[in-house]
Amino acid sequence: MLTRIDHIGIACKDLDATVEFYRATYGFEVFHTEVNEEQGVREAMLKINETSDGGASYLQLLEPIREDSAVGKWLAKNGEGVHHIAFGTADVDGDSEAIRDKGVRVLYEQPRIGSMGSRITFLHPKDCHGVLTELVTSAPAEQPEH
Amino acid sequence: MLTRIDHIGIACKDLDATVEFYRATYGFEVFHTEVNEEQGVREAMLKINETSDGGASYLQLLEPIREDSAVGKWLAKNGEGVHHIAFGTADVDGDSEAIRDKGVRVLYEQPRIGSMGSRITFLHPKDCHGVLTELVTSAPAEQPEH
Repeated sequence: MLTRIDHIGIACKDLDATVEFYRATYGFEVFHTEVNEEQGVREAMLKINETSDGGASYLQLLEPIREDSAVGKWLAKNGEGVHHIAFGTADVDGDSEAIRDKGVRVLYEQPRIGSMGSRITFLHPKDCHGVLTELVTSAPAEQPEH
Repeated sequence: MLTRIDHIGIACKDLDATVEFYRATYGFEVFHTEVNEEQGVREAMLKINETSDGGASYLQLLEPIREDSAVGKWLAKNGEGVHHIAFGTADVDGDSEAIRDKGVRVLYEQPRIGSMGSRITFLHPKDCHGVLTELVTSAPAEQPEH
């Protein structure tokens, strides 16, 4: 069951400049940074609030490290902006299978590693009214209790 | 101070079909519907989780009721997808003034009426790394306590 807005993924050309925009304009601070080689991005997570399922909602700022990464190609086509939205669940495996069974294309055969050790998958935007949609289960240390 | 992700605004061509997609795929239910004549939209709010500031996070599904509305023009250009993101604050007036003073263009001189009687304003996406950004103060009955 999807129990929270986990994050909004925002593609940017210059991660440091975008982090500074969010800090200077709104006071949002960086909670975590990492490079995800598989996804081809350098990213910063800004924690905005905690959520009623014991998790939290973040902005995820994404700068491609390769032009041929998914985010790199998206940025070249669309320019900076909202790249995807992500819902949090305790069971990304079960939920993605159930959603696949409803005829929505799930982009990964098995969940992959996302921010902060989470397990993630994506749903095809053409099956989701134009919205690239991610499902996330937080890593055990970050996992909300139920 | 911005204390939550209040909602993600998603533009769609057919509100009823999009509501049904979110219900059938994820189990999200409609919390509220309304027509906002000034904004030129028919909308549905789907409540996803509550937030640590006493508010909540929603998906806001938006169908234009006029082609020349902001959402109608955006949809004609971009197709269905994420139209804007919104941060919740107890003081949209003060925060929008402070942000204006930092050189970010605020689109309304004074906040206008948004979903569920909230007071809202928007920041120019070109000043926000491509993200159309809304600030929201909930109506008193919906206002988080501090």
